[in-house]
Amino acid sequence: MSAYRPLTAASLIDYLASHIPLKERLGGNAADWTAREVSDGNLNTVFIVSGPAGSLCCKQSLPYVRVDPTWAMPLERTLFEARWMQSVSAAVGHQIPALYHLDEGLFLIVMENLDTHHVLRGALIQGTAPAGFGARIGEFVGHAAWATSWRALPFEDVHALRDIFSRNLALTRITVDLVLTDPYRRDCQRNRWISPEMDDPVAELQDDIALHAAVERLQERFLSVDQALLHGDLHTGSVMISGDDVRVIDGEFAVFGPIGFDLGMFIANLVMNAYAQPDHDEWMRDEIALLWSSFQHAYQEREENTDTRGDVGSLRAKKAEGRAGSSPWAAERSRFMHQVMHDLAGFAGLEMIRRTIGFAQIADYDAAGDRPSQIEARRRALATGRRLILKAGRIDTVASLLDHV
Amino acid sequence: MSAYRPLTAASLIDYLASHIPLKERLGGNAADWTAREVSDGNLNTVFIVSGPAGSLCCKQSLPYVRVDPTWAMPLERTLFEARWMQSVSAAVGHQIPALYHLDEGLFLIVMENLDTHHVLRGALIQGTAPAGFGARIGEFVGHAAWATSWRALPFEDVHALRDIFSRNLALTRITVDLVLTDPYRRDCQRNRWISPEMDDPVAELQDDIALHAAVERLQERFLSVDQALLHGDLHTGSVMISGDDVRVIDGEFAVFGPIGFDLGMFIANLVMNAYAQPDHDEWMRDEIALLWSSFQHAYQEREENTDTRGDVGSLRAKKAEGRAGSSPWAAERSRFMHQVMHDLAGFAGLEMIRRTIGFAQIADYDAAGDRPSQIEARRRALATGRRLILKAGRIDTVASLLDHV
Repeated sequence: MSAYRPLTAASLIDYLASHIPLKERLGGNAADWTAREVSDGNLNTVFIVSGPAGSLCCKQSLPYVRVDPTWAMPLERTLFEARWMQSVSAAVGHQIPALYHLDEGLFLIVMENLDTHHVLRGALIQGTAPAGFGARIGEFVGHAAWATSWRALPFEDVHALRDIFSRNLALTRITVDLVLTDPYRRDCQRNRWISPEMDDPVAELQDDIALHAAVERLQERFLSVDQALLHGDLHTGSVMISGDDVRVIDGEFAVFGPIGFDLGMFIANLVMNAYAQPDHDEWMRDEIALLWSSFQHAYQEREENTDTRGDVGSLRAKKAEGRAGSSPWAAERSRFMHQVMHDLAGFAGLEMIRRTIGFAQIADYDAAGDRPSQIEARRRALATGRRLILKAGRIDTVASLLDHV
Repeated sequence: MSAYRPLTAASLIDYLASHIPLKERLGGNAADWTAREVSDGNLNTVFIVSGPAGSLCCKQSLPYVRVDPTWAMPLERTLFEARWMQSVSAAVGHQIPALYHLDEGLFLIVMENLDTHHVLRGALIQGTAPAGFGARIGEFVGHAAWATSWRALPFEDVHALRDIFSRNLALTRITVDLVLTDPYRRDCQRNRWISPEMDDPVAELQDDIALHAAVERLQERFLSVDQALLHGDLHTGSVMISGDDVRVIDGEFAVFGPIGFDLGMFIANLVMNAYAQPDHDEWMRDEIALLWSSFQHAYQEREENTDTRGDVGSLRAKKAEGRAGSSPWAAERSRFMHQVMHDLAGFAGLEMIRRTIGFAQIADYDAAGDRPSQIEARRRALATGRRLILKAGRIDTVASLLDHV
């Protein structure tokens, strides 16, 4: 463990040269290596270091938000990202990058460099994302959610895991403020939008008490319903894609919460992309339907084929009982999946609104073409977001969800 | 802090004599004091020490279950009881005993001795409990639940509080096993009942897959829905009463969970008392109605008159908004209270069943008179428990609850 200092390309190369397993992955010696800064997200510094034998992705926390150095931010977020990778890797396999090294003093992660992969958001905007990635994301959430839930683990293990991420306060605070609160407050300086055509729909959101009451219900579910370990920031910029190899990255927001949060956030980003690029509408709907069916299948497959059970579900005798199609267990599972869909719809609505008028907006809108088209895409996102939040409790199925977008 | 040793009457007196503030509460000197063991619950040793100026209640953990020395049990449960007292005392005032002293090495609590009080369960059985105690219990739960919730505290404070009680593993394991699981398992040696008239209804419970699916839902809610800090074992043996002074004791099972758990457990014990002593039926119904209205009133009163808010509810502008009778906030509160009632009904059902055929049964049944009457009371409890668990999701109001008991 080293004392903290922000790394430069040069000091990072020195660091890697002194760690034999990392040095061997790069091959040769430090003089043969190149380091390239590729920081793309809002928060951290990222370098790709390449050598004769391979390359590494190195991610370090800064003591502030990278895109806003006046916003101080505890360094420990990298530790939570590493703990998230360690917590889900057995369940999700190669759907996340391999973690090679964690330096808890430098707040530095060294991991697999996905050099043939592209950020999904960019691939969507450019129209180069191959069809079918929704299935991989659905599987990812199904496997990670099952493996960290009360259905898979004795409650003692869930408590221990939850306590780790309960301390992820700085990034959970960002979610609570930026996603669950700010966009609905008139006086919040972190909101912004391209006026004046947006003024009216924004004012309507901020004056709509019925909407605020529905948002409060989602605040309560996000904070108090601990179904499983969430990724916590699963938008299309947190996914890397290369053909049918789909990887989820950037788990620094990980915290326990309702499973529908991750699913809803991801789906919201697909919907917003299709609003900005209307010719994407059909495949967007296909990917969403695929994502939901894959999530259900992955979750149920684990439930039906796992011999060890957690404390929830301990009364089910054996694997076979989970399989009987018409049993009370099937009815209970259906109820559970409806509840996940309610959450999915509500959190998708929150994500659409905050990515349109909140602090961290999305690049997809810039692909909408001329200014009237961009405004139209944003207005649609606000209207759909509001509708999803208000009607979440009545959206039971993916067909109903797609009717509302 | 002292090294652990089980205290006797004599060694406890020596200990108290060496702690000036405790000595002063007793008055005089050790030679003037008497120590009397009054261990009554299943788990711990309790002494009352009396002196010229006053008396003290001293509770120490044993390394096993007091009523079953073959059942090992970590000592730390006394620490969780003390932390529970510290966590709720500001909110509930004199509704718990005053905590004078905690020795984390001896696992010893020294607290106010409630010498004019009686255990509520005994007073109910003897018919000496004054009417109206339900209001005090409803207030207690309302105040404690509000003060430890996401509606009252920033989420960072709730996480810190929750993490403390997340480690209360040994006693939460007892709840998960004895309340939420064992009674529904045919092969569980900890179940027992006065056969043979009970054999059939017990077998029906243990074969009823629809019931088990409904129990699973309650397992999930108990473990994954963290609305507030619970007492965790709020039966009529955890309440001391003297006139209209009602105190809640024995918070060693404290853990975060759904508010309806505490309410349901308490109400179940009133219902079982009235089944054993049918002339108690009318006042039992009165106390339950009073308890529920007092809980709602206490919770709402805090919500409406607290200026500081937690992260849930942060969009409500000011106190006044919580008060408007027909606003979306009122609808949201109504939905919240219905959900608490669903939980209350389900957990009441679990408590009735486990107190009738599980490991820790209740003395009330012995007051039913002859054996056929005792059996009839127990069979009614099993039938009502099952009905409440199966119908919990449709029980919205206290009137509906009373229709089902």
